[in-house]
Amino acid sequence: MTVRGPSGVIHGVGLGPGAADLMSVRAHRLLSSARHVAYFRKAGREGRARKTVDEILPEGVIEFAMEYPVTTEIPFDHPDYNAALSSFYAECCGHLRALAEAGEDVVVLCEGDPFFYGSFMHLYTRLKDSVPVQVVPAITGMSAAWTATGLPITWGDDVLSVVMATLPEEELVRHMKSADALVVMKIGRNIDRVRNALRAAGKYDDAWLVECASLSEQTVQKLSQAEGRVTPYFSIVMVHGQGRRP
Amino acid sequence: MTVRGPSGVIHGVGLGPGAADLMSVRAHRLLSSARHVAYFRKAGREGRARKTVDEILPEGVIEFAMEYPVTTEIPFDHPDYNAALSSFYAECCGHLRALAEAGEDVVVLCEGDPFFYGSFMHLYTRLKDSVPVQVVPAITGMSAAWTATGLPITWGDDVLSVVMATLPEEELVRHMKSADALVVMKIGRNIDRVRNALRAAGKYDDAWLVECASLSEQTVQKLSQAEGRVTPYFSIVMVHGQGRRP
Repeated sequence: MTVRGPSGVIHGVGLGPGAADLMSVRAHRLLSSARHVAYFRKAGREGRARKTVDEILPEGVIEFAMEYPVTTEIPFDHPDYNAALSSFYAECCGHLRALAEAGEDVVVLCEGDPFFYGSFMHLYTRLKDSVPVQVVPAITGMSAAWTATGLPITWGDDVLSVVMATLPEEELVRHMKSADALVVMKIGRNIDRVRNALRAAGKYDDAWLVECASLSEQTVQKLSQAEGRVTPYFSIVMVHGQGRRP
Repeated sequence: MTVRGPSGVIHGVGLGPGAADLMSVRAHRLLSSARHVAYFRKAGREGRARKTVDEILPEGVIEFAMEYPVTTEIPFDHPDYNAALSSFYAECCGHLRALAEAGEDVVVLCEGDPFFYGSFMHLYTRLKDSVPVQVVPAITGMSAAWTATGLPITWGDDVLSVVMATLPEEELVRHMKSADALVVMKIGRNIDRVRNALRAAGKYDDAWLVECASLSEQTVQKLSQAEGRVTPYFSIVMVHGQGRRP
């Protein structure tokens, strides 16, 4: 492809935890003047990121919906899962790179903070050496979740560990025992393993469950009071630190 | 004190990592319409939080500067340090409570995210049972720091641990060995202990040092290239996770 002028920029823009007014001023400015916007979503769905910016995008913005070829149909540790996602990301990048090389800026919507367990990272690593990519950090879902509990997450010298519920139970237990404050993400169908691990680490009674932090559907409760509840993948379980304070 | 009408609200507003346009839209709205603003600072200094909002506060806003009685003159584990800070926080809260009880809303400026190792937490716990307190989460300094490195901090199932450089060296080593991704905060005069601990954990060569993330003075370099440098208290050292990715 012949580059006809200066390259456009791919902006990986963190939207934060979900409430539209918790995105940064910088993110809002980029979105409200965007000509091209791209976002991930599950096939056939509107997509949470796209919905967040509904009132902000200008009229006539050109949209590029990147629909995941698989989500939970294949286990994430199966080679087919990796292969399907890998060629999906490569395709997405082909389209984004072509836009940038044609001089167009593109805003890629990212739920949460782009560099913290985000899907955008898979585009970023494939794009960064060929076109300019700028990343706008954002408020993490976990920040919104601990704010929702009304309790600070860390004091003094507390160690905070962030662990994924997809880990084996014995690894969960080890990290749960070792940390003062704890955030567990990617919950969903892993909730029973998380409960068991928290019990084994002696922290079950101190754990909170936060769903849809910052949104109108937000719920906050002690995990022990949510027995039997089905909880979404994006729920967060946390145990607050109790460190030094004057 | 007689309450003459509905109470005002104390807003603990996170400003984020430092760049004014990385605060949230909600924070910006609260600041630009504030009648009362309060903020911590070192005696005799302008204060970093106050400086961040210079262009945003409306004319005629009433300011309450809360000047720390001690910072590093007394070791933080000395009883005098705790006593001095404790009565300082109580005094600040007396003033803020009186404003709220008189029906005034107050915006308290918080660097970073208020509930993540922030000074506001000490006011919050003293105020929350007597007057309405609302907290606005924010982008953490560590998010701005890993964004500045141009490398995602966590992939797949990576465990992220956030540790304070004030911990004993053997505890630092233990947590550094155990985590996949690592953020070390409260650096300053503890930098040599952090270096030693990273070496013992086998992670020294992979560590980055970020100073003043998101500000014009920002510096980003491998820690090993910053030998002998004096680095500020708010610097951040990090080691990126290398987890699963398609």
